[in-house]
Amino acid sequence: MAQELKKATKPTWYDPLKAASLADQPVLKVYNSLTKEKASLSHPNGKTVKWYNCGPTVYDAAHLGHARNYMSQDIVRRILVDYFGYDVHFVMNITDIDDKIIIRARHNHLLDQLRATSTVLSESLLTQANEAWRAYFASKLKGFTHPKSDSPADIDAAWSEMLNKEKSDEKWWSEAKAADEKFTMHIASLRKAKEGINRAVAAISSNQASQTDSSALIDAASDVLAPYLDAKVSTFLTDPSISRRLAAHWESAFYSDMSKLRILGPDTITRVTEYVPEIVQFVEQIVRNGYAYATEDGSVYFDTRAFDGGKARHFYAKLQPGKKGNKEALEEGEGALSTGASKRFPADFALWKASKPGEPAWPSPWGMGRPGWHIECSVMASEIFGDNMDIHSGGIDLCFPHHDNEIAQSEAYHDCRQWVNYFLHTGHLHIEGLKMSKSLKNFITVQDALEMYSARQLRLAFLGQLWSSPMDFKQSTMLEVKARESSINNFFNVVKALVLESRSNNVASDQQHHYNAPEKELAAFLTETQNAFRASLCDSFNTPDALDRLLELISRTNVYLQRGRANINVSVVERVAGWVNNMLRMFGLGEGPVTRSTIGWGEVEVEGVTRDTILMPYLKTLSAFRDGVRQLAIQQASAKELLALCDKLRDEDLAPLGVALDDQEDGKALVKLVNPEILLRARDEKAAAADAKAAKKAAAVEAERAKKAARLEKGKISPIEMFKPPNVEDGLYGSWDDKGIPVTDIDGKDISKAKSKKLAKEWEIQDKLHREWKEWLEAEKGE
Amino acid sequence: MAQELKKATKPTWYDPLKAASLADQPVLKVYNSLTKEKASLSHPNGKTVKWYNCGPTVYDAAHLGHARNYMSQDIVRRILVDYFGYDVHFVMNITDIDDKIIIRARHNHLLDQLRATSTVLSESLLTQANEAWRAYFASKLKGFTHPKSDSPADIDAAWSEMLNKEKSDEKWWSEAKAADEKFTMHIASLRKAKEGINRAVAAISSNQASQTDSSALIDAASDVLAPYLDAKVSTFLTDPSISRRLAAHWESAFYSDMSKLRILGPDTITRVTEYVPEIVQFVEQIVRNGYAYATEDGSVYFDTRAFDGGKARHFYAKLQPGKKGNKEALEEGEGALSTGASKRFPADFALWKASKPGEPAWPSPWGMGRPGWHIECSVMASEIFGDNMDIHSGGIDLCFPHHDNEIAQSEAYHDCRQWVNYFLHTGHLHIEGLKMSKSLKNFITVQDALEMYSARQLRLAFLGQLWSSPMDFKQSTMLEVKARESSINNFFNVVKALVLESRSNNVASDQQHHYNAPEKELAAFLTETQNAFRASLCDSFNTPDALDRLLELISRTNVYLQRGRANINVSVVERVAGWVNNMLRMFGLGEGPVTRSTIGWGEVEVEGVTRDTILMPYLKTLSAFRDGVRQLAIQQASAKELLALCDKLRDEDLAPLGVALDDQEDGKALVKLVNPEILLRARDEKAAAADAKAAKKAAAVEAERAKKAARLEKGKISPIEMFKPPNVEDGLYGSWDDKGIPVTDIDGKDISKAKSKKLAKEWEIQDKLHREWKEWLEAEKGE
Repeated sequence: MAQELKKATKPTWYDPLKAASLADQPVLKVYNSLTKEKASLSHPNGKTVKWYNCGPTVYDAAHLGHARNYMSQDIVRRILVDYFGYDVHFVMNITDIDDKIIIRARHNHLLDQLRATSTVLSESLLTQANEAWRAYFASKLKGFTHPKSDSPADIDAAWSEMLNKEKSDEKWWSEAKAADEKFTMHIASLRKAKEGINRAVAAISSNQASQTDSSALIDAASDVLAPYLDAKVSTFLTDPSISRRLAAHWESAFYSDMSKLRILGPDTITRVTEYVPEIVQFVEQIVRNGYAYATEDGSVYFDTRAFDGGKARHFYAKLQPGKKGNKEALEEGEGALSTGASKRFPADFALWKASKPGEPAWPSPWGMGRPGWHIECSVMASEIFGDNMDIHSGGIDLCFPHHDNEIAQSEAYHDCRQWVNYFLHTGHLHIEGLKMSKSLKNFITVQDALEMYSARQLRLAFLGQLWSSPMDFKQSTMLEVKARESSINNFFNVVKALVLESRSNNVASDQQHHYNAPEKELAAFLTETQNAFRASLCDSFNTPDALDRLLELISRTNVYLQRGRANINVSVVERVAGWVNNMLRMFGLGEGPVTRSTIGWGEVEVEGVTRDTILMPYLKTLSAFRDGVRQLAIQQASAKELLALCDKLRDEDLAPLGVALDDQEDGKALVKLVNPEILLRARDEKAAAADAKAAKKAAAVEAERAKKAARLEKGKISPIEMFKPPNVEDGLYGSWDDKGIPVTDIDGKDISKAKSKKLAKEWEIQDKLHREWKEWLEAEKGE
Repeated sequence: MAQELKKATKPTWYDPLKAASLADQPVLKVYNSLTKEKASLSHPNGKTVKWYNCGPTVYDAAHLGHARNYMSQDIVRRILVDYFGYDVHFVMNITDIDDKIIIRARHNHLLDQLRATSTVLSESLLTQANEAWRAYFASKLKGFTHPKSDSPADIDAAWSEMLNKEKSDEKWWSEAKAADEKFTMHIASLRKAKEGINRAVAAISSNQASQTDSSALIDAASDVLAPYLDAKVSTFLTDPSISRRLAAHWESAFYSDMSKLRILGPDTITRVTEYVPEIVQFVEQIVRNGYAYATEDGSVYFDTRAFDGGKARHFYAKLQPGKKGNKEALEEGEGALSTGASKRFPADFALWKASKPGEPAWPSPWGMGRPGWHIECSVMASEIFGDNMDIHSGGIDLCFPHHDNEIAQSEAYHDCRQWVNYFLHTGHLHIEGLKMSKSLKNFITVQDALEMYSARQLRLAFLGQLWSSPMDFKQSTMLEVKARESSINNFFNVVKALVLESRSNNVASDQQHHYNAPEKELAAFLTETQNAFRASLCDSFNTPDALDRLLELISRTNVYLQRGRANINVSVVERVAGWVNNMLRMFGLGEGPVTRSTIGWGEVEVEGVTRDTILMPYLKTLSAFRDGVRQLAIQQASAKELLALCDKLRDEDLAPLGVALDDQEDGKALVKLVNPEILLRARDEKAAAADAKAAKKAAAVEAERAKKAARLEKGKISPIEMFKPPNVEDGLYGSWDDKGIPVTDIDGKDISKAKSKKLAKEWEIQDKLHREWKEWLEAEKGE
C-alpha cells in the first residue's frame, strides 16, 4: 500500500451550540406582579441583583403568615444565589416608626403604670374600668346597639340584649360578624372585661379585695382600659423611649424567630429611625418636583393627581390600578393616628405626618413630625440602590397601597419611568381554609408553629406550594410533609450505610465500579431529573415540581437498590444521593449555621458552637464521676462502693451517650464510640442474662433448702420410736430391743436375720437424721 | 381641582433586558485544544456536562506534576459546578493494565525474591551483580563507550575512561547529556551499583560478610539487577497477582495523595481491569468498521491510513496533526513490552496486544492478550457517555498520541464526526525553570511537596497560574503565595473580631446600619468586583485574574476599615468578607470534608469523623481516670490517694485539653470549655502561688525551729550554776544559797531585796528552760 497519511491540516470542529436547539434550553423566568406575567430574569444587571424586601413593622410577635412570607423569599433567594449563581444584595428594612408601634407602646406603658399605682382594688379603679367598658362599647358597637340613654343601666341593658341575640337571633349575629370582621373580637373583649368587673364588685362587697384582685381586674379589662387611658393622657407621654423600647423588643424577637426558621439574615438591614434626615430630604425633593404639597398642620401629602398621567406620563398604582382611590385600603395605610383631614384629594397619602403631643417627632421644614409608612421604603431602598433595583418583594397584602405608593414616590423623586424591574409578591396563607385571625382563635405565632413542627417540616410544606400562590395550611398537608421527610430520611440512611460499607472494602476489589444496564439507566434518569429540576426552577421557581422530581428520583433509586447489595454500584447511588442532598440543602433544609457564609477557612464551627455542643454531655459525665469518687474518698467508702460507681459510669451513664467501655484484663478499658441503641440493648441483654443466672441460683438454693427441710422433718422421729406404732402399722412387730429395733413379730416369732440387718441399717440412718434434727433445734433455740 | 385620577389601565413595563447591552455580558468561554481557541461553553447539553478525565497509570507515587494536573482540573470542575451551576458528571479512569506496571511489578518481585533467597553474601550473588552491571553498561551506554572487548577488564577500563571525561572533557560530557536525557540517570545507577559491588568484594575478602551485606549489595545494584533478572526469568512470572498488587497499592496511594491535596473524588471511577470484555467488543467493532486489522501474532492495530481522510472523511490526529507519524511519541505510547513488528504502517498503533508469557492476559478472538493503552479510555468513556461527551481532559503530555488515538478509535467505533466537543489540556509544570526528573534530583512527590507546603498553599500557587499554561514552580512564587495567604488570614481575623463585637451589642443600638458615602463606595466596589470576577472566570477560568480581584477587594476593604471602629458599618464589611470567603472556598481552599456532597441533613460530619476526632481525647481521659479509680479501689488505697488522683485529672489531664473543672462547696464541680493556654497558665500560676505559700510556711517552721533551738541552747545551763562563773562575770557575787541564787556580792555585802527578787525571777525562768532542755534530751535519747 503506497497510501500515506494526509498532510497535517486543520480539522473541522463542529460547534455543539449550533447543533443544540437553544430554544429548548430553559431560561429563568419569574412571575412579575408589575405585568402579571412571567418574564425572563437572565442578566438584567449582569449577574448582580439588587433586591429590596419589605421587612416587618415591629410591634408584635411574628405569625405563621410572616413565616411563609419570609421563608418563601428565603427559598427564592437561595435558589437565585446557590443554584443560579447570582450575586444578590438582599436588603430588608425594619419599620420601627409606625402608628401601630406608638399606640401599642403607649397602651402597654399606661397599663403598666396603672398596675404599679393600683396597690389595692379601689372603688376608683372599678369606676375607671366601668367607664372604659362603656366607652369601648359605645365606640366599637355603635352601629349594632341602641341603648336608650348613656346611663349605665341602659348600656347594660343593650349589652344583655346583644348577648341574647347570640342565642336567639343567629341571622342578626352572623350579619353583624359579616359587617365588621372585628365584631367577634370586640364582643370577646367586652365579655372578658365585664366578667372581670363583676368579680371585682364581688370582691369589694365581700371586703376581701387585695392587690391580686386589682391586677386581675386590669388584666381582664386591658382591652377596654388601654384605649380609654390613652384617650385621656396620651398627650403627656412624650418620652420617645416608650416607642423605642417596644420596637427594639419585637425587632429582636423577629430575628430570633427567623433564625429558628433557618431563614438567612439580610445582607443589609435598614431601620427607619436611622434614616429620618434622608426621608426629610427625599420628601423635599418630591415637593420640588411638583408631586407633593405641605399642609398648614405641618404634614406633607403626595399629590396623586399631579403624578398620575401628567406631562411626565407617570402612572399611579402600577401594581393594582383597579384599587386607585380605594378608601379602606388607603386609610389602613395611613395609620390609626392620622386623620388626613388636611389633604386635598382622597387618594392622596401622607409622606410626612405632623406629630401630635405623645407621638415621636423629628425636626423638619414643616415642623416636628414623622415619616409616613410608604416613604421609608422609597428612601432607604434609594439610599442603597439608587434610582433602580432589580427585585422588590413583599407579602401580597402590601401590594396596594404600600407598594404602589412606594413606586409612585420613588418615580416622583427620581423622575424615572421604572424604579422596580421585577416585583415579587408572596401569596396569602390561610389556616384550614380560613383567614388567620386572633378572633377566630386560629392565630398561630412562629413560636406556636415551631412547637408543633420542625423548621424543616415547615419549609418542606412551603416548598410544596408555589411561592406566589395562596396557601392553605392544613393538618393533612403536614401529615404528607412528614411522610415525605421520612422517605427522604430512609433513603439517606440506606445510602449512608452502603457507602460506609463500601469504603471499608479494599480499593482493589474489582467489579464495583462497572456500569451495566441498570447503572446506565439510573445515571440517565439522574441527568433527566437534573434537567427537569432546572426547568422547574427556571419556571418562576416552581419548587413543588422540583421537589416532585427529587422524590421521583429517590423512588427510582430505591427500585435500583432492591437488586440487593452484591449487585449494587454504590458510587452511582452515592452520586444520586449526593446531588439530591445538595439540592435539598440548597433549598435551606440542611443543618449547620444559618448564615450566607462563614468567614474563615472553616475551622470556626468546630471551635465554636459544635465543639461545645458535642463535648458537654461527656464532660459533665466525667465531672460527675469525679465528684462521686471524691465524695466516696472523703467518706472513706469501701472498695466495693467505688467499683459499683465505676460500673454505673459504664452501664448507666456512658451507654446512653454511645460510649462503650470494655474492661480488659490489664485494667485498662477500651473506649469505643458506638450507636447508643445497640449499646443499651447489649447492656439490657447482659442484665437480663445476669437476672436469669441469679434466678437459677436462687432456685437451686431453694431446692437445697426444701431438701434439707424434708430431711429435718424426717429426723423429727426418734429412732427408738421409729418401728413402733404409729410410725409403723399396728400389729407389725411384737417386741423391741432397747434401741427400739424389732425383735419379734406380732406373733412372737423372731425377726429373720436378714430382716434384722436391714432394720438395723434403717435405724442407723434414722439415728443420724434424728441427731441432725436435734442439733438444728439447738441451733434454732440459740438464735 | 376637578381633575381626577386616570381610569385603571395597564401600565407600561420596560423590559430591562432590552435596555441592557447583552453583548457586554460575559459568557463562559473555554480554551479548547481541538481548535486552539476559546469557545463558548454555554448550554452545550442544557447544563449537564459529561466530563471524562484521564486518570493515573498506577505504578509509582504521584509527583508535583500530577498534583498540578489534577488540582487544576479540580479547580475548573469546582468553578463549573459551584460557580456556574453546571450539573457535571465527572468520570476518571484508573489505568491498571500497562507495560510500566507489568515491568515495575516484575522488577520489584524479582528483587524481593533475590533478597529472600540471598541469606549470605555469596560469590554467586556478586557474579550476578557484576554480570548485571556489565549488561546495563552495554545496553544503556552503548552509544557512548567503546570497550576493546566484552571482557570485564576492558569494560571496567571503558567505565573509568568515561568517569575521567566527566572531569577532563566537559564538552563531551554535556553533549552526552544533551544526546540522551537519561544519560545522567544511567551514570548514577552504574556508579551506585559499582560502589556496592566494591564494598561487597571487600566484605567477602575480609571474611566478615553477613546477610546485611547481601541486602546492601542488592539495594545498591537494584537498578542494574532488575532488568538483568527480568530478561532471564520474566517468562516464568505468570501469576497475575504480581501486577495486580502493585497497581492496587499505587491506586490506593493516589487516592490518599489526592485527598490530602483536597481534590474532589470523581463521580465515577472506571478501572481497565473491570472493562476488558467491553474493550474486546469495541476492538471487534472497529475491525468490522474497517479501521483496524488483526495480525498473525494475535495483536490488533488501528489502521491510520484507512481512517485518515477516507471516504467517511475522518481526520487523524485532530489535536496535534503536526505529530502524525512521530515515531518517538508513538513508541512511548505503545509501551516498552511492544515491538510492533507485525504492524503494517509505522503510524498504526496497538488496540490489542498479544501477551507473551509473564504478561497479564485475557481471552479474545485473537488469542490471549491485553488492551493497548489508548483503547481503554475510548471504551470506558463510551460505556458511560455513549458516542459524545462535552469535556475530555488530561495533561498536555497526553495530547499525542494518547488523546489523538483515543479520538480516532472512538470516531472509528461510533462512526461519528466528533466524539469530544471540548478538549482541556492542563499545562506542564517545571521546577525552577527545569523539567522535573529523577536524574536532575528535582523530582518532588506529592508527599514531599506536602511536607514543604500546605495543600492550600499549593492550590493558591496553582490558582495564580492559568490552568492551560505552563507553570514554573519556584521558591520565590511560593514566598509570594505565603504572603497572599497571610493577608487573607489577617483580613478574615479582623472581620471576625469586628462581627463578634457587633453581635454582642444590643440590637436596638442605632446608626450601625446606615450607609454613608464610604459604605456606598465599598458596596459599589463589591458589585464591580463581582462582575469582574465573573468576567475573569468566564474567560476560560482565568483564576489569576479572579484572585487578583479578590485581593484588590480585600485591600480596599482594609482601607475602609482604617476609619476606626466607631465609624464602621460592620454589616457591609461582613458582606464583603462573606463573599470573598465563599469564592475562596468555591476554589477549594476551605477546610471540611473533601467530598462534592455530604449525604444527610448535615449531622453526618458530627456523627462521623468529626465527632470521633473531637471526642476521643476526652473519652480516653475519662476512661483512664476510671481505670485509676478501680485500681486504687482494688488496692484498698487511702482517701488521700483517691483525692490526689482527682486533682491530677483536673490539673494535669484536663487542663491541656481546655477543660476547666472548678471544684465547688457542694462537691459538684463546674465544667467549662476554655482556651487551654489560659488554663495552663492559670494552673501554673496557682502552682507557683502554692509553692510560694509552702516556702513561706517552711520559713516560718524554720524560724520556729531556730527559736526553739535557741531556747533549748539557753536551757543547757542549770539554774544552780547560772549566777556562778563562768556564766556570770568573775567577782560579781560572793555567796549563793542552795538553789544557787546569789546571797552576797563579792564584798560579802547582802544583795538588795529588790535585786534578790529580780534574780529569783530570772532563776525561775532558767529553771523552766533547763527542765525543758532535759525533757528534750530524754526524748532525743528515746528515739
